[in-house]
Amino acid sequence: MTSDPLPTRLPETDRTRHRRLREQGSLERADLDAILDAGFVCHLGVVVDGRPLVVPTVYGRDERQLYVHGSVASRSLAGGLPVCVTVTHVDGLVLARSVFEHGVNYRSAVIHGDARRVTDPDEKLEGLRRLTDHATPGQWSYARRPDRRELAATTLLALSLEEVSVKIRTGAPDDGDGPDAALGLWAGVLPLTRAWGAPVPDPALPPGTAVPEHIARRAGTRQG
Amino acid sequence: MTSDPLPTRLPETDRTRHRRLREQGSLERADLDAILDAGFVCHLGVVVDGRPLVVPTVYGRDERQLYVHGSVASRSLAGGLPVCVTVTHVDGLVLARSVFEHGVNYRSAVIHGDARRVTDPDEKLEGLRRLTDHATPGQWSYARRPDRRELAATTLLALSLEEVSVKIRTGAPDDGDGPDAALGLWAGVLPLTRAWGAPVPDPALPPGTAVPEHIARRAGTRQG
Repeated sequence: MTSDPLPTRLPETDRTRHRRLREQGSLERADLDAILDAGFVCHLGVVVDGRPLVVPTVYGRDERQLYVHGSVASRSLAGGLPVCVTVTHVDGLVLARSVFEHGVNYRSAVIHGDARRVTDPDEKLEGLRRLTDHATPGQWSYARRPDRRELAATTLLALSLEEVSVKIRTGAPDDGDGPDAALGLWAGVLPLTRAWGAPVPDPALPPGTAVPEHIARRAGTRQG
Repeated sequence: MTSDPLPTRLPETDRTRHRRLREQGSLERADLDAILDAGFVCHLGVVVDGRPLVVPTVYGRDERQLYVHGSVASRSLAGGLPVCVTVTHVDGLVLARSVFEHGVNYRSAVIHGDARRVTDPDEKLEGLRRLTDHATPGQWSYARRPDRRELAATTLLALSLEEVSVKIRTGAPDDGDGPDAALGLWAGVLPLTRAWGAPVPDPALPPGTAVPEHIARRAGTRQG
């Protein structure tokens, strides 16, 4: 790990250069950070026997690396593993006048790289701390932390945040100033929002076990 | 397309056989159908130059096939293309007594196969109809349909729903009857829900353009 300051712009590579016009590619690191911080589930892509495999899993991060829970991919893991990790937030349907201009408002980060299997127990513990507190801030200091056996049974991957393609689409459909505007059809966006519900206690809990503040305060708040 | 009745059980293959215990693998076709019908965005995985690429895109379906908007993958498409398409719904955080038992309540379908590029104009139109009405029921008969040029400019993939791995996790954490129950910690699930918001009109619309009923009635309803 270097301690050089992070550049505020993401580097372009053959894989991350934006090719299509309708999505809005961003090279701002702040946009990447916001997308990663808004979620906790990613889609991890690996190649198994020459074919793609895409599985959902959870992630956390520090400034320079993503930590990904890798048990789902463990049978295809050996040393450095080519992966693609994608984080997507769906913000709404873009309902245009023409079917052709229909689309989705979304934010996505597509991260390319060779995943490293974290083996050092201290780094693994730190990675799991970040992963746990990323999904549920405050939970690492509340729950019982992994013991040596549990740590060994956990597969954690680390992936550099160097090569990333960020795309963001917001706002109205694109055919409001074209000939289809004369059709007189309604057009706009149907927003999609995510929210945390009220905590559901484990039925096995003794009655009266209090919901800790760091969990209770999320109920009813927006997510993502 | 055959007209044989669909079996109600999904076939097991080397790729779809469930290996891990903590997830709940399902072989019920009804579970697959429900997962596909609950969403409209999937993650499409392909192999490019030996490396995985995972991109979000939209899908629709009939009984036997998934239709996937494929422009995102068009530069890696030539004939039959090995793909993995994953649809995931995140239903909540599973907050256990121990970090090790933390998890996510979710429903996912991982579909393996060789995607076929749809070239026949009639099938393409039918696929786009299914895709459009899957995301927004009623929209195909409301919006202007694709003309010949738009149809040619659209990449649509078809993927058989034959080889699918379905996983569903619901309910409380698993450590309620173990030694950690004595820790006295709260444990349970923090649910995550999605809902459609109120339609946002395109600012380019003439004032007073009515929101059509098939869009207006979704506002405030749950999604997924």
